[in-house]
Amino acid sequence: MSNLSNKIINGIRTVAGKNNLPLHEPRFDEVEIKNLRKCIDSSYVSTVGKYVNIFEKNISDFTGAKYAIAVVNGTSALHLALKLVGVDRNHEVICPSLTFIGTVNAISYLGAKPHFVDCEEKTLGIDPLALSNWLDEISIKKGNKTINKKTGRLISAIIPMHTYGHPAKIDQLLKISKEYNLNLVEDAAESLGSFYNKKHTGTFGKIGILSFNGNKIITTGGGGALITNDSSLAKKAKHISTTAKVPHKWRYIHNEIGFNYRLPNINAALGCAQFEKIEKFLKSKRDLFNKYSEVLDSIEGIKLFKEPKNSKSNYWLQTIILENGYENEFEMILENTNRNNIMTRPAWDLIHELEMYIDCPRSPLPVSKSLSKRIINIPSSAFLL
Amino acid sequence: MSNLSNKIINGIRTVAGKNNLPLHEPRFDEVEIKNLRKCIDSSYVSTVGKYVNIFEKNISDFTGAKYAIAVVNGTSALHLALKLVGVDRNHEVICPSLTFIGTVNAISYLGAKPHFVDCEEKTLGIDPLALSNWLDEISIKKGNKTINKKTGRLISAIIPMHTYGHPAKIDQLLKISKEYNLNLVEDAAESLGSFYNKKHTGTFGKIGILSFNGNKIITTGGGGALITNDSSLAKKAKHISTTAKVPHKWRYIHNEIGFNYRLPNINAALGCAQFEKIEKFLKSKRDLFNKYSEVLDSIEGIKLFKEPKNSKSNYWLQTIILENGYENEFEMILENTNRNNIMTRPAWDLIHELEMYIDCPRSPLPVSKSLSKRIINIPSSAFLL
Repeated sequence: MSNLSNKIINGIRTVAGKNNLPLHEPRFDEVEIKNLRKCIDSSYVSTVGKYVNIFEKNISDFTGAKYAIAVVNGTSALHLALKLVGVDRNHEVICPSLTFIGTVNAISYLGAKPHFVDCEEKTLGIDPLALSNWLDEISIKKGNKTINKKTGRLISAIIPMHTYGHPAKIDQLLKISKEYNLNLVEDAAESLGSFYNKKHTGTFGKIGILSFNGNKIITTGGGGALITNDSSLAKKAKHISTTAKVPHKWRYIHNEIGFNYRLPNINAALGCAQFEKIEKFLKSKRDLFNKYSEVLDSIEGIKLFKEPKNSKSNYWLQTIILENGYENEFEMILENTNRNNIMTRPAWDLIHELEMYIDCPRSPLPVSKSLSKRIINIPSSAFLL
Repeated sequence: MSNLSNKIINGIRTVAGKNNLPLHEPRFDEVEIKNLRKCIDSSYVSTVGKYVNIFEKNISDFTGAKYAIAVVNGTSALHLALKLVGVDRNHEVICPSLTFIGTVNAISYLGAKPHFVDCEEKTLGIDPLALSNWLDEISIKKGNKTINKKTGRLISAIIPMHTYGHPAKIDQLLKISKEYNLNLVEDAAESLGSFYNKKHTGTFGKIGILSFNGNKIITTGGGGALITNDSSLAKKAKHISTTAKVPHKWRYIHNEIGFNYRLPNINAALGCAQFEKIEKFLKSKRDLFNKYSEVLDSIEGIKLFKEPKNSKSNYWLQTIILENGYENEFEMILENTNRNNIMTRPAWDLIHELEMYIDCPRSPLPVSKSLSKRIINIPSSAFLL
């Protein structure tokens, strides 16, 4: 075993003990069971029921977004969000290559093309300076529209993503998006509980999305949400996520092509129970970061990723980054930690290199490429301590 | 109150008592709570977990389909099913106009166009004779492909739907589909527990779909499934419903544009509990039909819809059909029953008349038009007796 993997394993074991350590486990107690029982007793387990409304109120209260619309997962939320801001067939949408596949698939569902831009080492999110330079180089304005000079396609939106819960420089990205008339849709799937300048991630653009997948800060089994301050977008989101049914005493009338994306009440019941504990989870994850920091910071060759400036991160996934020059240890660390029942994971394979997206436009991506060979997520469950 | 509504109300009350009568309520007991608790205790509430596997085994055992793939709802199942048989942009797909909107929206998600055909009074499903005549009139064969002569588009698939659980003449429809090289995808969303010639609905074509929405025979909150005997289709369905992730010890590689459609384990836990009781539910719904039959059959102007020949129906939604000449009582019956806390519903507004589908191709639809002014679903929950 390499010296560096050994040190990392010892560090993680010092903090989290000798158990089998998954990457991220949810935590439940009797509150979840109580809610599930109430939901079952009410017989409303499906797309109508009080827990869906309470869950949306919880999201809205917690994030400060005026409106929240609960749906089946983060990918479906992003699909609807992009549709609602007007992304359409043959548009291009700016997005990172270093992200979960759902970010990019949602673009494809609308027949639009991802256009990949680089991330920065300090936030792991889209690099505002590189973005600005790139748009300046490759785009041309026609009226109030931004056109890709090379492909001739309209660039209609941008999706910043807050990687592992760490806020991107969303204020600067917002400024650039306005300059180029791009609709900003914030992928806050990983960043519930993360704030930039004291404002919750997901609330900067026209519309943001959250995820409540099993591995997230809080979970509904599968689930997601759109958040927005725009009442018209909120109304439309609810409408098209519920098959675009027009209210009527009994008739079944639908006035556009809608989706069957509404979160079931039984999943919302779970989410309401989880929301009662979110502050505890967040504190616990910050404590875990601090403990990891104590033992890992002194190891030469790695750094533990710390929340960026002006940000308060949810520390969803704790992240080691290999320093430049230590890339050759990457595979061995993954191999050795996992063999020792410490679940670790690299970043996602860069999406612009996957076969179905290999022909999509992209800027140079030196930082994303470098990071993808140096990022390792380590066990991050709340209450590991 | 009209004489006819009065008779209907009295009939329903005689069978189902004086309570507030919803259209269709699920029925739960401690088995559901037990499963939910076990699922919570396992901490696997999301897209991986033993209940999803057991639930799929239950579906497979019950329907006789070799493979079942559980997804978030019936609409997403149909979307994937159509994609898997090769429906693509600018194809046409034959479907009924008298159906739930999800049947038709799933076609649109692929950029294909619905092509509406008529139903028959005896089954409420697609009329084989009318279909055959229509295809003969409007299509032309090019090689092994069927082209719509007027639009020039490929007609690539057909979706028979088993309305309210009553089997369409699926053997004849299958024969016609083969003759015209149409991929037959069976929408059995409403017909879990319904058999045609002793073979379960949904297992006749290449692939079929089921729904476990809150109002169905058994429910997972929200849920659906694809069923098939084709191992290659089954494998692909599982792959693209789980983001098309390629198995790897830790890397995140995806090899095509996939979907986030997998059923969460917590919903499957509910479904497994429900499956334990499905035979009871089915018996109870048949008993309800028989009781309704005793009191409603003698009322002049209506008939209670009975399972078609060669079929065993799940009697999902009990259905009154106004006899010809009694259409003017339609609104009044809906009005009076609902005002008296007996929830009744008309059929769906015909989809070819909705604004987003008004320009799509269609055959003459006299029977669908007539039925849509004469169908009334009445309270149908299991255990109403």
